[in-house]
Amino acid sequence: MNYSFSDKVTGLQPSAIREILKFTADPTVISFAAGNPAPEAFPVKAVSEITARLLESNPVSALQYSITEGYTPLRETLKKEMQDAGCFDPDMDDLIITSGAQQANELACKVFLNEGDTLICEAPTFIGSLNAFKSYNVALKGVPMDSDGMNIEMLEETIKTSKNPKLIYIIPNFQNPTGLCTSLEKRKAIYELAKKYGLMILEDNPYGDIRFAGEDIPSIKTMDKDGLVIYSRSFSKTLAPGIRVGYVTAPKEVIQKMVVCKQVADVHTNAMAQIICDEFLKNYDMNAHLESIRTIYRNKCNLMLGELDKNFSKKVTFTRPEGGLFIWGTLPEGYDMMGFCTKAVENKVAVVPGTAFLINESDKTSSFRLNFSTPTDEQLVKGCEIIGKLSKELFD
Amino acid sequence: MNYSFSDKVTGLQPSAIREILKFTADPTVISFAAGNPAPEAFPVKAVSEITARLLESNPVSALQYSITEGYTPLRETLKKEMQDAGCFDPDMDDLIITSGAQQANELACKVFLNEGDTLICEAPTFIGSLNAFKSYNVALKGVPMDSDGMNIEMLEETIKTSKNPKLIYIIPNFQNPTGLCTSLEKRKAIYELAKKYGLMILEDNPYGDIRFAGEDIPSIKTMDKDGLVIYSRSFSKTLAPGIRVGYVTAPKEVIQKMVVCKQVADVHTNAMAQIICDEFLKNYDMNAHLESIRTIYRNKCNLMLGELDKNFSKKVTFTRPEGGLFIWGTLPEGYDMMGFCTKAVENKVAVVPGTAFLINESDKTSSFRLNFSTPTDEQLVKGCEIIGKLSKELFD
Repeated sequence: MNYSFSDKVTGLQPSAIREILKFTADPTVISFAAGNPAPEAFPVKAVSEITARLLESNPVSALQYSITEGYTPLRETLKKEMQDAGCFDPDMDDLIITSGAQQANELACKVFLNEGDTLICEAPTFIGSLNAFKSYNVALKGVPMDSDGMNIEMLEETIKTSKNPKLIYIIPNFQNPTGLCTSLEKRKAIYELAKKYGLMILEDNPYGDIRFAGEDIPSIKTMDKDGLVIYSRSFSKTLAPGIRVGYVTAPKEVIQKMVVCKQVADVHTNAMAQIICDEFLKNYDMNAHLESIRTIYRNKCNLMLGELDKNFSKKVTFTRPEGGLFIWGTLPEGYDMMGFCTKAVENKVAVVPGTAFLINESDKTSSFRLNFSTPTDEQLVKGCEIIGKLSKELFD
Repeated sequence: MNYSFSDKVTGLQPSAIREILKFTADPTVISFAAGNPAPEAFPVKAVSEITARLLESNPVSALQYSITEGYTPLRETLKKEMQDAGCFDPDMDDLIITSGAQQANELACKVFLNEGDTLICEAPTFIGSLNAFKSYNVALKGVPMDSDGMNIEMLEETIKTSKNPKLIYIIPNFQNPTGLCTSLEKRKAIYELAKKYGLMILEDNPYGDIRFAGEDIPSIKTMDKDGLVIYSRSFSKTLAPGIRVGYVTAPKEVIQKMVVCKQVADVHTNAMAQIICDEFLKNYDMNAHLESIRTIYRNKCNLMLGELDKNFSKKVTFTRPEGGLFIWGTLPEGYDMMGFCTKAVENKVAVVPGTAFLINESDKTSSFRLNFSTPTDEQLVKGCEIIGKLSKELFD
């Protein structure tokens, strides 16, 4: 059978990371290729207690159909929290629960862009979002990153030269894959450009709560007096990703369209998972929990950076993230990044080639992504030793 | 702010049922308007036992990121079950877990149809699917239902006169909203027409397991030698809808595209919910559980039909479903259906006007939908008495 698929999906391919992850099924391979939170950070005991109580006291609330917008007590809790953070204006905004921030980002694209309209993003950026946008057959334009975020001149030039530019997608904190933060100055500049040219901003902040060094930078949503910002967040890195709970705040008219699209996508997010999040926020100490996660990640990140410094060719540079899960390594211009990644996996260490995070995987980059949250400390040391040695053989 | 939404969503409205359901928030209103399974049918004890064991023995499997295709043991269990039922050919097909059958149906549309292509469905049909299809801006054509399924001549005529017809959507068992089954003869005829004109069939079977009278009819998927059928099912009516677990079997190339689209939609379905389904199928008696659900629904359906017969004007006719959750009432031609539904809710009984299930809500129908699974027995008796009396006042 020769299937005639829609134009939207004809060119879609499974994420390139999946091919790399295949190697990581081999238990002798040390994987720096994942994006998983550290399993020791999951609040297992709390989840056990909450589900046991819930299924004893009010099982129907966890098992029956629920409303698309999400579990009302959780929405109220999060609205309050977002308002206190300056990210929710009750007169302008609404907030709904989504099946991970992934769903929020996909819905934002569906709601605003026709096929062929332009969505502008950081280059490189998160592959899951890139693929979501591609699945609506929109035109993607990447703006290169400086160490403090998108290059603002190139952003404006891109807006001016694109066909129907509609949305700027940005991960301002500890960006995936680079680990970089966008500076306050650039956040303001991006907001002003969006306002000037009539674009929306999709601010994706899955890592904001796991800053383990430096000072918080206000999110773009706090600057939004004009109803331009869609702000998506997630419990995936703070509680657990397997429960698939995220949330999004945006102007009411935007949320209204997102609700209709969510309704047709999955009716509502798993009810038990939403109640688990709400009960955790109400009856457990989220701040203490976040502090324990930050400590785990700070230690793992510092361990990896130390081992990279110790073992690698000095020709390879690394970002020094203040939060999140990722470090971004860059080879000197002209060196063979893909060859390095291939040799690494032959030596039983998996990293993700930077091309995976580009709009066109055939574009050139000399960078690669390392994850420090999933490997054990022993694996971090051993893996850095192996690929460090490899880098010296190849580049020194 | 004057938002410029995509063409896909500009015309999308929240489901009309939601407006009706607003009245049902009033606890004095008896709701025959829902589509919820009976809460007494939920296997609460089993779910409690499974989650307690799971969070004790293997919490990371429930809380960590998982693969998009779904929890492998559950997929294997379901492939075996579907193969035994003649609905899965391991050489041709694959099977993935979805966030409810709603997601499977939405993905099928996304994968096959461009904006403007034609999707053909029963008229009336399930509003959730209609809205999913509308959210991709496809052309919808409805084929009127006879008592044994779509009118085949009109189906062929519709295929022949439509622009790029791609997909036939059908709910063959205890259809929502009519409660009707498509006969074996018509299932064969629909398959032959799909084959003749090169269309795919999306066979949505959420209610097939809750047949409480009559004999099973083979699904269209059992006839599929040509790779034309996408077959979606759900645990929403057999275990619980709040957990949002469905599944879909289709030819491998089709599933491959659906996986990429599911990956960008929500990464994967809630992991704990998938494990709950798998453990239930493996360690509990699903057949006995289904038999107990069928008994509940048989009793509720018979109770409602008896009360309708007793109380209603003889001018109003009702379908006599052999399964599912719904009865379809029809007023004599020319009578004011919407006026009847409005007066019903003024009398504190909510039913769903049949227009909610049409492609254009402004089209005419003299029918309305009644749900018998959610109300208590007392509510069924009381509600039928109230609207029966109303029908006599209005139509006799």
